[in-house]
Amino acid sequence: MPQPERKLIERIQRLTSRRAPGFIIRGIGDDCAILRVATGHHLLITTDLSIEGVHFRRKWHPAESVGHRCLARGLSDIAAMGGEPLACFLSLGLPASLNQAWVEGFVRGFERLAQRFRVALAGGDTSAALRITADIVVAGQIPAGQAVLRSGARPGDRIYVTGELGASAAALKRLFTGQRVKPATAPSHFYPEPRLAVGHWLRKRKMATSMIDLSDGLSVDLRHICDESRVAASIRARAIPVARNATLDLALHGGEDYELLFTARPRAVVPARIAGVKVTEIGGIHARKDYPAAIRLLDENGKARTLEPQGWEHFRERIR
Amino acid sequence: MPQPERKLIERIQRLTSRRAPGFIIRGIGDDCAILRVATGHHLLITTDLSIEGVHFRRKWHPAESVGHRCLARGLSDIAAMGGEPLACFLSLGLPASLNQAWVEGFVRGFERLAQRFRVALAGGDTSAALRITADIVVAGQIPAGQAVLRSGARPGDRIYVTGELGASAAALKRLFTGQRVKPATAPSHFYPEPRLAVGHWLRKRKMATSMIDLSDGLSVDLRHICDESRVAASIRARAIPVARNATLDLALHGGEDYELLFTARPRAVVPARIAGVKVTEIGGIHARKDYPAAIRLLDENGKARTLEPQGWEHFRERIR
Repeated sequence: MPQPERKLIERIQRLTSRRAPGFIIRGIGDDCAILRVATGHHLLITTDLSIEGVHFRRKWHPAESVGHRCLARGLSDIAAMGGEPLACFLSLGLPASLNQAWVEGFVRGFERLAQRFRVALAGGDTSAALRITADIVVAGQIPAGQAVLRSGARPGDRIYVTGELGASAAALKRLFTGQRVKPATAPSHFYPEPRLAVGHWLRKRKMATSMIDLSDGLSVDLRHICDESRVAASIRARAIPVARNATLDLALHGGEDYELLFTARPRAVVPARIAGVKVTEIGGIHARKDYPAAIRLLDENGKARTLEPQGWEHFRERIR
Repeated sequence: MPQPERKLIERIQRLTSRRAPGFIIRGIGDDCAILRVATGHHLLITTDLSIEGVHFRRKWHPAESVGHRCLARGLSDIAAMGGEPLACFLSLGLPASLNQAWVEGFVRGFERLAQRFRVALAGGDTSAALRITADIVVAGQIPAGQAVLRSGARPGDRIYVTGELGASAAALKRLFTGQRVKPATAPSHFYPEPRLAVGHWLRKRKMATSMIDLSDGLSVDLRHICDESRVAASIRARAIPVARNATLDLALHGGEDYELLFTARPRAVVPARIAGVKVTEIGGIHARKDYPAAIRLLDENGKARTLEPQGWEHFRERIR
């Protein structure tokens, strides 16, 4: 076993032995973890890969940021269902040459976020690998039948987003052009905040008819809602909360904002802030037959054009 | 998105849309999968990485074998708790240069095993990667409080293994020395059989006091039982069911047999075959204070020596 792997396992076991919430009957140390799902609840499971050179670069992202982002991706998926995260599982492939300080930093960033949301590490796997590879699994629970799906949007619904968009992509764009970006100046890229409290608030009040987290970019993720709900959407460029330092284009197509995109019935009174996070109405849902191209953007001059899903993929593919 | 990734997602979605067992409320297509755990049951979760160059080589292992082995690792962990597998999640990192035939083969091998054990694919993630990387997550269930743990062995218990040991390591050894090994001649290496029926049988009758699957090798995995149960063990070399073509050394230290190693009370009547699989008594459990070095091997001449855990790691590290 290469040294980073052995040290990592020891580090992780120390980390998790501190507490074992009631949900976890048995964590690390057996063939499987054993979990208890509360009566009347369903289980949520999500998995997300983070691969060096694809999702992050060691020279751009501090180890703490890589650990944080890895877990944040999973927590954000739980948020997008309106669920409550309970336990996570981390599969880590590490190069033999990796220094121990990097591993410590990764675990620190991961642990800080896990503790804030009271998510216990209940298992995982480690292996040697050519490049750092982290697969995060988050298990959560939700009252049976209450998960907010992508498929619930109906014509007439209004479309909302939390926070501001494009800041993460703006930081990445600067990194690509060779600029240094200090993590403190771009927290939404290096330390994105999973919107668990907002998702939970909306689900509890049955206010969101559909929901998704913005991981691939607004144009792609709104398209997912339209496809799963078999509806179309129109959004107003002027209404989109473009982050400072970002552009409309980055707000529309840049990924990894990890804000929530949701729809609500037209008569629903959606507050301007939920759990301290700004909420902005950006458009409405239409019947698919009225607009087969799915998403229409009303630009700053009020002119309508089709918004093609571009999203994150073309950024991602440049990281190698 | 590189072509293999896009094709893979399409292929996988076709694969899973065919059926959706009652356990799966929502599979692929939303932010999380939603699962229902039966009343009075606990959830089991296990994760296992398979990385090209570490766990398999493309020139040695057909794509079907890689897909089969990937899922078999997870199913074997469920077997070792006495549980019932229900759904799996597959995170796949694929090189952009990978040809479509390989992906098809992988999915075919994976799918065949999944169908045999009625395990549905309920989610996952895909990404570009430098080397093929597969992380398998298997979710299962077990009646609350009935999981067979590693920690239940008591002094006086007898030690048993299923099947025969060392064949997988023997095949790998031949591959390392440059020999060609046809998959049909070494099924336990290329297409290992997760012992789900045996694990279930033992759990239902409360016959096993502790259990683990032999993934790292007998000397390592028996050590896990000893450590978790705070006991010692002695095994008889003559009793170990060494596979044809293997040696005692490979049976003791070679990994990836995916047989079950379990203990039972001395008065338990453990059949010579369970669910069609041979079961062999190989030794007994002792108090740790009587033998602090944990595992004693009585060799062919009846001489006792300490068996150090060596196991699989030193094989694995040679694959690069």
